[in-house]
Amino acid sequence: MLNVGIVGAAGYTGEALIDILLGHPEVRITSLSRRSAQTSNICDIFPQFAGRLDLSVGPVDLKQLKAKCDAVFCALPHTASMELVPKLLSAKKKVIDLSADYRLKDTRVYRKFYNVTHKDAANLKLAVYGLPELYRNKIKGASLVANPGCYPTAALLALAPLVGLGLADTSSIIIDAKSGTSGAGKKAEESLLFSEVHGDCKAYKVNAHQHMPEIDQVLSRIAQKKVRVVFVPHLLPVKRGILATVYARKSSKAKNRPAIQLFRKFYKKEPFIRVRKEGDFPRLADVQGTNFCDIGIKEEKDCYIVIAAIDNLVKGASGQAVQNMNIMYKFPETLGLL
Amino acid sequence: MLNVGIVGAAGYTGEALIDILLGHPEVRITSLSRRSAQTSNICDIFPQFAGRLDLSVGPVDLKQLKAKCDAVFCALPHTASMELVPKLLSAKKKVIDLSADYRLKDTRVYRKFYNVTHKDAANLKLAVYGLPELYRNKIKGASLVANPGCYPTAALLALAPLVGLGLADTSSIIIDAKSGTSGAGKKAEESLLFSEVHGDCKAYKVNAHQHMPEIDQVLSRIAQKKVRVVFVPHLLPVKRGILATVYARKSSKAKNRPAIQLFRKFYKKEPFIRVRKEGDFPRLADVQGTNFCDIGIKEEKDCYIVIAAIDNLVKGASGQAVQNMNIMYKFPETLGLL
Amino acid sequence: MLNVGIVGAAGYTGEALIDILLGHPEVRITSLSRRSAQTSNICDIFPQFAGRLDLSVGPVDLKQLKAKCDAVFCALPHTASMELVPKLLSAKKKVIDLSADYRLKDTRVYRKFYNVTHKDAANLKLAVYGLPELYRNKIKGASLVANPGCYPTAALLALAPLVGLGLADTSSIIIDAKSGTSGAGKKAEESLLFSEVHGDCKAYKVNAHQHMPEIDQVLSRIAQKKVRVVFVPHLLPVKRGILATVYARKSSKAKNRPAIQLFRKFYKKEPFIRVRKEGDFPRLADVQGTNFCDIGIKEEKDCYIVIAAIDNLVKGASGQAVQNMNIMYKFPETLGLL
Amino acid sequence: MLNVGIVGAAGYTGEALIDILLGHPEVRITSLSRRSAQTSNICDIFPQFAGRLDLSVGPVDLKQLKAKCDAVFCALPHTASMELVPKLLSAKKKVIDLSADYRLKDTRVYRKFYNVTHKDAANLKLAVYGLPELYRNKIKGASLVANPGCYPTAALLALAPLVGLGLADTSSIIIDAKSGTSGAGKKAEESLLFSEVHGDCKAYKVNAHQHMPEIDQVLSRIAQKKVRVVFVPHLLPVKRGILATVYARKSSKAKNRPAIQLFRKFYKKEPFIRVRKEGDFPRLADVQGTNFCDIGIKEEKDCYIVIAAIDNLVKGASGQAVQNMNIMYKFPETLGLL
Repeated sequence: MLNVGIVGAAGYTGEALIDILLGHPEVRITSLSRRSAQTSNICDIFPQFAGRLDLSVGPVDLKQLKAKCDAVFCALPHTASMELVPKLLSAKKKVIDLSADYRLKDTRVYRKFYNVTHKDAANLKLAVYGLPELYRNKIKGASLVANPGCYPTAALLALAPLVGLGLADTSSIIIDAKSGTSGAGKKAEESLLFSEVHGDCKAYKVNAHQHMPEIDQVLSRIAQKKVRVVFVPHLLPVKRGILATVYARKSSKAKNRPAIQLFRKFYKKEPFIRVRKEGDFPRLADVQGTNFCDIGIKEEKDCYIVIAAIDNLVKGASGQAVQNMNIMYKFPETLGLL
Repeated sequence: MLNVGIVGAAGYTGEALIDILLGHPEVRITSLSRRSAQTSNICDIFPQFAGRLDLSVGPVDLKQLKAKCDAVFCALPHTASMELVPKLLSAKKKVIDLSADYRLKDTRVYRKFYNVTHKDAANLKLAVYGLPELYRNKIKGASLVANPGCYPTAALLALAPLVGLGLADTSSIIIDAKSGTSGAGKKAEESLLFSEVHGDCKAYKVNAHQHMPEIDQVLSRIAQKKVRVVFVPHLLPVKRGILATVYARKSSKAKNRPAIQLFRKFYKKEPFIRVRKEGDFPRLADVQGTNFCDIGIKEEKDCYIVIAAIDNLVKGASGQAVQNMNIMYKFPETLGLL
Repeated sequence: MLNVGIVGAAGYTGEALIDILLGHPEVRITSLSRRSAQTSNICDIFPQFAGRLDLSVGPVDLKQLKAKCDAVFCALPHTASMELVPKLLSAKKKVIDLSADYRLKDTRVYRKFYNVTHKDAANLKLAVYGLPELYRNKIKGASLVANPGCYPTAALLALAPLVGLGLADTSSIIIDAKSGTSGAGKKAEESLLFSEVHGDCKAYKVNAHQHMPEIDQVLSRIAQKKVRVVFVPHLLPVKRGILATVYARKSSKAKNRPAIQLFRKFYKKEPFIRVRKEGDFPRLADVQGTNFCDIGIKEEKDCYIVIAAIDNLVKGASGQAVQNMNIMYKFPETLGLL
Repeated sequence: MLNVGIVGAAGYTGEALIDILLGHPEVRITSLSRRSAQTSNICDIFPQFAGRLDLSVGPVDLKQLKAKCDAVFCALPHTASMELVPKLLSAKKKVIDLSADYRLKDTRVYRKFYNVTHKDAANLKLAVYGLPELYRNKIKGASLVANPGCYPTAALLALAPLVGLGLADTSSIIIDAKSGTSGAGKKAEESLLFSEVHGDCKAYKVNAHQHMPEIDQVLSRIAQKKVRVVFVPHLLPVKRGILATVYARKSSKAKNRPAIQLFRKFYKKEPFIRVRKEGDFPRLADVQGTNFCDIGIKEEKDCYIVIAAIDNLVKGASGQAVQNMNIMYKFPETLGLL
């Protein structure tokens, strides 16, 4: 049995992690902590775990983490994560970090989008970007995995075949993404109140969202040239799920190659990618509560429209984190996730 | 034209008041204020008013209220209201107070349910409870109207005929009420987040809600004896609306008198009460955005089931406040409300 | 491995059954059928099962059911069920019937509430009412289990201790229940459209719902006298979940016995009942997606208020059906359900 | 007073028309009809109108329409409309048609997208496309106005300045639109059930929606060359509202001209267009229940992102129909709409 700790257990990704790990046959949750100073039983925060888990959640306690855990999931807000992660790594723990702190390789970009200076450049270099469909081999040997953002997961899985196979004009990529509210976390903000969000829909951080450079970074690596996408996120009156509608013009290499087949081939061995049939597009309901990313493709004469759906708390966060853990510890990749 | 001010204009009842008053032919909104120290244009807070109203909202300014208003709507949280109201009354303004501060005649009960000592016993005595269907005549001459709470409005309109005509056993009254989230105001609380409320329903303040003594007070007055109801409010994943399902055993006087006819007669001249046909019950959609209270009645051998629906922000707050203003200023009672 | 068939697999309870059974280590789904004449792959109906189940769903085929199944879950609409069940029982299959056809022992009551004459009185006599918390021993040896309705499950679990221990005045029971829309099934009716239900709440079948006699039947058996409840169901803008708020006056036997402790004792060994602490009440979110029934209790001087929450598709239908299967086949009762 | 009839009064656009016209000081509703053979009082269909309107709704009765109406709003499904409209025009009635039947000038395109042959080519030629911001002068003298589709209204108001002023590369236009469910009408379809739509979001008719040629037709007219947009509509779990997020590359003419100012100038005299400030984008809540179209603009080095929000039942249907009526009858254009 692998002993794991969850730091940041009181938020939505923490909750989803607990739920998944309770069903994982090779894992024992041994430590829960959160940022608040208050200590309480996890079931007082999440009554649905009553009868399934009996652990207290208190402030982060490094000693406890060292003593009780082999691996730690860090579900802290960005900046808080890079305070803790170096200490865990020093103590020889494997870390799967769900914050943004170890995703952007360029610390200037990090500063621009997160308004703080990066403090842990050393580990940033070692961190592996935890998108298994692209970086499985590196994840296998990693001590620190930077679990991808929810939007980048959906967008990159929709775009990787187009860019990787050279089908798309990389200067023309537009990502119109729609997300449920749990992506914003459990923050008591007026704009996230039920009375504000119910019956509403809006764009926000229009072409300025902090997940944009993360997408650009990976696509640039794939394309081996600078790629800059247009990215507009929208807030849906939905708790869980991301739908990314991606538009790209065809490149000259794209002619005469049916995209659905190419996507199928590209993702042939992937247990969590389901490419839909011609004319069939995913909806959030198809993936909510699962670690799947469903992808539908419409190919026009000059362009592609690719629609990817994930559950932002599972494939977009906690499920993907467990998938990464499975890879790191050589468990079957789908263990606890189907 | 009557010049009115709205104190507490940035909340949901303030918003609803502005919306209604902009369509009122005899009223001009001349002053808007709120509790926060920040000053901004009302359209920065509520973009939907752009092109319809151009006023700034700043902290409460007594001088401005005195200079510019004939009447003031006070949509402040309780306790804040009783600080301001005496000053407005001294300045000879008529006040319609939407807080709980002037509703409970017994200051000990007020202290018990609101956890503060009442500071304005003098005006409390003069305040008229603003439920037009019961107290229209007193409202006509009032300087200070205590606008009823949203739950009491629905519950009392469902119960007034039963208790007033002696049909119900007053010891058996149960009110199972369901409310939309705007009743809780625009407060950034975790429990009111979209991610928490969406897809959920729960009871809260079970038989301990602060609106319970307000209901008891009015029913006791009607029954001319002490009445204590059982009252369980529930939070719905809905923005606007209250559905009150009321249960009461029949009294000995009830036999052989068909309740629907008695309700129809009781509310015969009421412009905002609609008693439904046999077997027909209101839903929230029938009253949302209106000042109506729709009532459906099911009469069993031994008991009554009465279901009342209102929009908590209109008949349960701002609409009823305007109805009270119409009565106080001798405008037609439905002016601006149909 | 137990081979099971699901008849009525294309509806919401069928979907929930498949989802649960795919995670059950002792079960193999070998047959899926539905009422429509159309045959298709289950993943064309429920894309979320792609990669997890590959079976076709066609019209009910008795031969196939006989050849491939040990046990059959019947998730047909009432009246359709009693056509098929006798044939399955003749073929020595065990049947868990999720319809209402085998719940009401009195065929006159059945006719009154379902508007059809019962056609299978013989098996009706043998059917065991599948509420494990009350009838576990009978379920063990049953060939035909009548799986309880969703409202009765919630209401009876809230009321069984009160009535069973003689705490409540059985003439005073009021059940104010709130249900999500999946309880109405996947029927294309105008009143169930998103545009109608969203933002709305209403009572329906006020004190006339077909689940009322089912509740009365069980409570009468427990009380050993005729019990008739008042029952008002409401439709919530929620997909899954039932919240039953139950009111009862105390009987003379009730004095001085703290209800929470009595409930705890009553349900001591029950793996799916969670009695909440004093002052703590369940919300739908606590039980959605689970087979738990969470119960909160408020005890007043003269009455009890008991609030029970279940997921109508799990404990209120498919989860309870699997719980019954576990009991019938001597699997651990929680297998596949935690 | 203008006497108007509404044909198709039982649907969502009919309901919105009644609501608006009841508040219009120059209009009297004299006839209501619908497609069903059933006759009932309008308040049995829409209880919210009780006390405000007392008219029966029966099958379409040409005689009654001729006798009682000056103008007729036709809110029938497409194809049903072109059966009735010629008869109304022959009887010298002015008609505002809310169906798609008189919008597409090319009957081959109509056949392709609506799967029926057009039957009224004569009146099709005379019909004026009722988008006041573009065709006000023609509407003034029209006998038959083809009220625009909901998606085209939002998309065209976002695009008209870009295309009209030559700012956009017309080969690059992408419209990612999100709509509430009332746009699909009051049809009892499984895919529109609350249980299906709640918590979900999906694309549909991907680049194949029947509103696409309507957008192409108007943009081609404005650009004076063939324009073909990419158009992907999405279904939101919302009753009312459309958010259109529009992307276009800049043309060579675009350089150095700040788009917000150009939009402001373009819509200077428009009472229902509100161009937002830099960095400010509309949400559905800003326009729900109103006839406004709010527009936010983000200008990048190479492209524009324009976001338009409307209420699909008001500016996208019934409100715009009343705006057209106001223009046709020389009432102030905003009468009954503010």
